[in-house]
Amino acid sequence: MIQRLSVVGVGLLGGSVAKAARAQGLAREIVGVGRDVRRLEPALRDGTLDRAVTDLAAGIRGADFVVLAAPVKVIEGLLERVWPLADADAVLTDVGSTKRSIVETAQRLAAGRPLQFVGSHPMAGSEQSGYGVARHDLFRGATVIVTPTDGSAPAAVKNVTAFWERLGAGRVLSLDPESHDRAVAAISHLPHLVAFALVDGVERLDATAFDVAARGFRDTTRIAASDPDVWEEIFLANREALGAATREFLRSLAQLTRAIDACDAAALRAALARIKARREALP
Amino acid sequence: MIQRLSVVGVGLLGGSVAKAARAQGLAREIVGVGRDVRRLEPALRDGTLDRAVTDLAAGIRGADFVVLAAPVKVIEGLLERVWPLADADAVLTDVGSTKRSIVETAQRLAAGRPLQFVGSHPMAGSEQSGYGVARHDLFRGATVIVTPTDGSAPAAVKNVTAFWERLGAGRVLSLDPESHDRAVAAISHLPHLVAFALVDGVERLDATAFDVAARGFRDTTRIAASDPDVWEEIFLANREALGAATREFLRSLAQLTRAIDACDAAALRAALARIKARREALP
Repeated sequence: MIQRLSVVGVGLLGGSVAKAARAQGLAREIVGVGRDVRRLEPALRDGTLDRAVTDLAAGIRGADFVVLAAPVKVIEGLLERVWPLADADAVLTDVGSTKRSIVETAQRLAAGRPLQFVGSHPMAGSEQSGYGVARHDLFRGATVIVTPTDGSAPAAVKNVTAFWERLGAGRVLSLDPESHDRAVAAISHLPHLVAFALVDGVERLDATAFDVAARGFRDTTRIAASDPDVWEEIFLANREALGAATREFLRSLAQLTRAIDACDAAALRAALARIKARREALP
Repeated sequence: MIQRLSVVGVGLLGGSVAKAARAQGLAREIVGVGRDVRRLEPALRDGTLDRAVTDLAAGIRGADFVVLAAPVKVIEGLLERVWPLADADAVLTDVGSTKRSIVETAQRLAAGRPLQFVGSHPMAGSEQSGYGVARHDLFRGATVIVTPTDGSAPAAVKNVTAFWERLGAGRVLSLDPESHDRAVAAISHLPHLVAFALVDGVERLDATAFDVAARGFRDTTRIAASDPDVWEEIFLANREALGAATREFLRSLAQLTRAIDACDAAALRAALARIKARREALP
């Protein structure tokens, strides 16, 4: 049982953490920290938060579990400010979509003051943002990746893993931060980049085509409505791994395009059949 | 009221046409034509078809409305065979995803024997195929594009338009075949090609990443599980317009990639915000 859970950033992810923790009875007290007190009011009114504060020190002090829920670059800045404020035995995690830069920041801070920090990345979200779309069941059945390092205290890894399991995660995987960033570049960041480029490409080519969009286009580009601030930071923070993933995607696209241009029906059909089988085998 | 509706090819689309026509009481008799009588049995058993035949002549003769529901190349071959068999006053349409080559075939045949043919493309479907996934409400609210030419009889255009409206279409748009092929290259064929390339690219890069796929990847690549036979034919039949769409997509992707590589946060955020607004404005 957590005595005081502090959630810094009460949007889609932070709000869902607070709602899930409330629904599971995971914490005696839940404190929300935000920049704008009016934005925190809905979470107070609906009983998700016990307290809402704009002062980071007031929100962090006395908390035994702290979740930083903000875009990647903001989390790095928050870590710098939260680290000296946190209780000595507090457990800290975050929900950032890239992990190397965040974990490096934490490691640097830990050299000055050891704290129980383990990075997290719940593979759940929405193209929408804000507390209004937060859900108590957002993490139900989801995969959560935690990214401990050699310096991580085993107890902290255990606590953060148990935290996500209690919030409903279907499984909690452990990856080193670099492997995490490479995997999500391929499976999450590349699809977002491609979805953004698809909408943009159609607009350049023939915006009237939007008029006949069916479910295929809608599903393929749903995530192109994602938050520009969040995704600008993710794309830049993970640009190296994203670049490698993009190059591989372009190789695949070029290979399919070559078969089409050459009217090589047999090669094209074989490639599409192989890809279809791969897609259907998704766990 | 149609006296005898013949549906050639009783899979996802043809089966849904028959089911919707049955549900709407649109035809006195519904005849299904297929190559394999066993595959037609479920549609007989569930009452969707009154008769199921493998002989094309027996299936077409006496029909006042004929729908050809097969992959693009197959439809072209079917047109050649159906044209001399059809009743002189029958109305013919098809559900092919590209229209130029089909309509050209029909125009050539009409020069020898005038018949009421108008091409159709219901913008509805599924990554799954076969009668097992056919639905009586597949076309409900969908956009259907009809592609008359200067030579099309106004009565035929009216009949085919009314047919789709009675099957539940939200609206029936009229486009010339070339404009149709360009529009669907952008809004449908390109997203399919990109989805196939995305799954293939991730497999080349790091197949273990599939293990952490979340809803973003699933939605973006749902259509990469589409029927290889259908899509090989669509990609080849529409390769010119698809090539132009792919080049525009690649320009958009390159522009985003340049902003990422240059760490130009402001330009990247502005582009993503513009694209998000465009995506959210989808009708």
